[in-house]
Amino acid sequence: MKPEGAIVDVQTHKAAFDALMERHAPLMAAAIEAVQTRRNWSPYKDSPSSKIHGTEKPEAGRKAFEAQRGKPFRLEQPGVIGRTGGEISPYTGEALRIDYPQSAPEALIAAAQAAMEDWREVAPRLRIALCCEMSQRLYERNFEMAHGIMHVTGQSYTQAFSGSGPNALDRGIEALAYAAKAMADVPESATWHRTFGREDVALEKTYRLVPRGIGLVICCASFPTWNAYPAMFASLATGNAVIVKPHPIAILPMAIVVQTCRQVLADYGLDPNLVTLATDTLDAPVAQSFIDHPAVQIIDFTGSPRYGSHLERTVTGKQLFTETAGVNSVVLHSTHSLAETARAIARAASLFSAQMCTSPQTVYIPENGIVADGAHASFDDVAQALISAIDEIANDPAMAAGIMGAVQAQASVDLIKKLEENLHATPGARVLRAAQPYVHPDFPKARTLTPLVVVVSPSHQALYAEEHFGPVLFLVTAKDGDAAIAEATGLARERGAISSYIYATDEDFIDRSVGAYERAGANLSINLHGAMWINFAAAYSDYHVTGLNPAGNACLADLAFVAGRFRIVQRRRPMTTRANGMDGQK
Amino acid sequence: MKPEGAIVDVQTHKAAFDALMERHAPLMAAAIEAVQTRRNWSPYKDSPSSKIHGTEKPEAGRKAFEAQRGKPFRLEQPGVIGRTGGEISPYTGEALRIDYPQSAPEALIAAAQAAMEDWREVAPRLRIALCCEMSQRLYERNFEMAHGIMHVTGQSYTQAFSGSGPNALDRGIEALAYAAKAMADVPESATWHRTFGREDVALEKTYRLVPRGIGLVICCASFPTWNAYPAMFASLATGNAVIVKPHPIAILPMAIVVQTCRQVLADYGLDPNLVTLATDTLDAPVAQSFIDHPAVQIIDFTGSPRYGSHLERTVTGKQLFTETAGVNSVVLHSTHSLAETARAIARAASLFSAQMCTSPQTVYIPENGIVADGAHASFDDVAQALISAIDEIANDPAMAAGIMGAVQAQASVDLIKKLEENLHATPGARVLRAAQPYVHPDFPKARTLTPLVVVVSPSHQALYAEEHFGPVLFLVTAKDGDAAIAEATGLARERGAISSYIYATDEDFIDRSVGAYERAGANLSINLHGAMWINFAAAYSDYHVTGLNPAGNACLADLAFVAGRFRIVQRRRPMTTRANGMDGQK
Repeated sequence: MKPEGAIVDVQTHKAAFDALMERHAPLMAAAIEAVQTRRNWSPYKDSPSSKIHGTEKPEAGRKAFEAQRGKPFRLEQPGVIGRTGGEISPYTGEALRIDYPQSAPEALIAAAQAAMEDWREVAPRLRIALCCEMSQRLYERNFEMAHGIMHVTGQSYTQAFSGSGPNALDRGIEALAYAAKAMADVPESATWHRTFGREDVALEKTYRLVPRGIGLVICCASFPTWNAYPAMFASLATGNAVIVKPHPIAILPMAIVVQTCRQVLADYGLDPNLVTLATDTLDAPVAQSFIDHPAVQIIDFTGSPRYGSHLERTVTGKQLFTETAGVNSVVLHSTHSLAETARAIARAASLFSAQMCTSPQTVYIPENGIVADGAHASFDDVAQALISAIDEIANDPAMAAGIMGAVQAQASVDLIKKLEENLHATPGARVLRAAQPYVHPDFPKARTLTPLVVVVSPSHQALYAEEHFGPVLFLVTAKDGDAAIAEATGLARERGAISSYIYATDEDFIDRSVGAYERAGANLSINLHGAMWINFAAAYSDYHVTGLNPAGNACLADLAFVAGRFRIVQRRRPMTTRANGMDGQK
Repeated sequence: MKPEGAIVDVQTHKAAFDALMERHAPLMAAAIEAVQTRRNWSPYKDSPSSKIHGTEKPEAGRKAFEAQRGKPFRLEQPGVIGRTGGEISPYTGEALRIDYPQSAPEALIAAAQAAMEDWREVAPRLRIALCCEMSQRLYERNFEMAHGIMHVTGQSYTQAFSGSGPNALDRGIEALAYAAKAMADVPESATWHRTFGREDVALEKTYRLVPRGIGLVICCASFPTWNAYPAMFASLATGNAVIVKPHPIAILPMAIVVQTCRQVLADYGLDPNLVTLATDTLDAPVAQSFIDHPAVQIIDFTGSPRYGSHLERTVTGKQLFTETAGVNSVVLHSTHSLAETARAIARAASLFSAQMCTSPQTVYIPENGIVADGAHASFDDVAQALISAIDEIANDPAMAAGIMGAVQAQASVDLIKKLEENLHATPGARVLRAAQPYVHPDFPKARTLTPLVVVVSPSHQALYAEEHFGPVLFLVTAKDGDAAIAEATGLARERGAISSYIYATDEDFIDRSVGAYERAGANLSINLHGAMWINFAAAYSDYHVTGLNPAGNACLADLAFVAGRFRIVQRRRPMTTRANGMDGQK
């Protein structure tokens, strides 16, 4: 397991290490099987139901969150130069009054480098087991996490529990599975025999997996854990240290993550500075100082297309993985049930008030209407069905609370209201539904906003061809279904798309459409209805982000997401004993 | 095999495709097994001996080369705007008088994009079989290739045959094996079942492998095929078109490669413009215009550290693979046989007049001498042994011709002679052996140069810490073995190294050295003697270039070399028939 190098405490912890590897081996084996079959699987339950978890755990999680409010967050980091924090709950409008240590970037880098000295010598199998353990501990803290996620991002309680909990941990375990596969592809050693002239040459070769360098994980504000877990686990598993840079308005979830990971490392006698938190403020951002540092060799970024494309244009000689955003579209060509289709689209457009990378923003509808329920439905019939389906959610406070949650930033509310004003003044645009708040049943002061719905034509493309981060649905009049596909895929290629959707009962139409999406590098969902959110991305099964359009370059997860995070260094020498020589002669 | 899209001639060629896939399947299976065990294997013979090939093939190859001299090279490319060429044989000093088509870059890019439209729809297995066929045809042309290689690069006939033939094709097949593994990791489809609430959701998912974009392969002048084959096959297998940019002073080998690949494509009814040649001149280089083009998404570069690092600093948003050069070192600590060790080092320093990326340039020797053959050998004893071993080659014209070959460029001769002058004038440096030509037995006008050997101390580091492209060996006085390791690994880390060598009988010394090389990201050969060239890199077994030091970022080959050359685009939809539903319930 450890041909050379030494961890100080390896003998002390040997029994614990062995037990840990044994405990998590079945999980990793199942995860590897899952990514290969892409079947549904998870080691976790993604419902917060007390039928699953009992009543104590949910309550303990809530209390843990409440106990943290108004207190300094405990994180013994190196190089602390001050404390920061200033998160405001979108549900209460009140400050969480939690502060976090702020460390000097150079101190975090030096500490990460020091921690990597031991970590690089830890066998990949043990590193993976330790990451599994971190995931398990995070799952155990998930009720606390759910409240933390809610009150910094605005996600609803159930979404915070599932989407930012097990669904996100699953993406982390998935990345671990790929890291395990990529590392297992490199044998530890080999024997090599060949005759040169009359001489038999026998060499023994050793192949060492060497980490690339510190991984910087830059998290977004609205869904921080979902991309962070795969990035963190992919880098950690391959031997790298990780510095987590949370968005300054959503620190708590990543502070919980870093605290948990550090505890696991400490419990097993390893240097907790392998995982640290790099807090900053909106006024004095620190990301670039890490990005420019030569010790930082891997950058995982989730966030705005603006900063993401800046990184894509400027970072050289490092591994850069990005997920930003695009303009996701629905093409509505025909349907067996307009009501069901409208409900599916309305739910996706309402979920977390469209603050998701998979939220649809445009719906293309043929201007002369569609075939729906075996009859003709006019453009306005379709538009009305969509608005009814949105209203059904918006007008039911309990349902709205569960689906829409809250709007994280006032900027999103301002942006959508400004857009609404502009649209009222735009010739040819028809505002069908105003963006209005709903009253949250538990949090009357919650910052909420139900979707703006507007009819536009392709002449307004400049308006809808970029992401508006907030609840808005553009209903675009298309000449016909094929014209809609042409425009939707063209925009996906040029402006980016993470999820695309079509509804059609005509198989010929579907057949001639799928190639256009494939060429646009756009993942496509066809005729999804029913209980599953159409923008649900299943770990182990759905490849997320193609890397072929401007919405990002990182697929969560595939071999390309992990294979460059480590390198191979070999050595070779003549076989030293006859016995070895015989062993190698196969 | 082809769920959608269409190749015009797919039915016409179906039987031929099937036969081709069947024919090459065992080769690919064996290659995959070889990269997994890293054992010695090759489908080809790397000796030009007539005992293997008979007498006709060698003669026919020579004649084919001779017939090409003085004639236009036949390559029906698009967008031809002129013809170029001007290669001069290092063996005869005469111009080959072969000219090649020069195509407008835009025309080659447009033709490559058009060719990719069909190629992306070709099943990966068939693409791989077609690459195997290209390799086979190139192997069949290898005697002709060997003469071509000789007369543009200066490699000896045997090295041109083996190193630029089967050994290079093996690296290509190796890259194909990795491409096959990475693509096979993505299933073509999956069924997915999950319960949401009370609803059973069943989805069928399709995962399509999509090429990233045109691959540009920039070849070096001294060893063009060795890096070109893996780059070309890795890009082609994953669905991309390839534009080959040969060095303007070494076009012929890559013209033969491109011609051969195009013939295979044409034979199977595919668009030959999938592989094209982008010639240019030293005065008007075209590489950058391809690099900057958005359709070019993959760049494989082999050549000077200067241009390589320019690319590493400037290319963003594309896959960039580089192999440049470093300063390879030998640390001589102790040996069982000074004569054998000296011979091993002398051969490596003499092979192809040190114009190889694996040639050693420095030999660190403890200033107080070493333990050799069980006794003490002084620094000067060791130096003398090295010079004797070099002289043994240099003074035997037949051996010199077979090992040293010729020097490709007068610039290398000038550079080494200038260096020799400088060293004579450098206080503390001792020139022990002058760089002199030897008289080639077959080509009296050959541009030859035997190694310059000079003793320097660490105070001269500026002199030996960069690559001098030509035959020179710096014998560096080290305080002791450990000091030598410290300096050698420090330079490897800072200046790059592709191959490092140590000789030591002291296992403790070896044990404490290997970690330093690993940390420097330097591949290490320990105590290699005998018939195998110590700088021989075996395909399927030796990972070449770690990517952890400035000598390049591309490992030939590993999963990271191939995994980013394609992307995954998925689609999903509800399962349509009950039968499918049952099939999926496993």
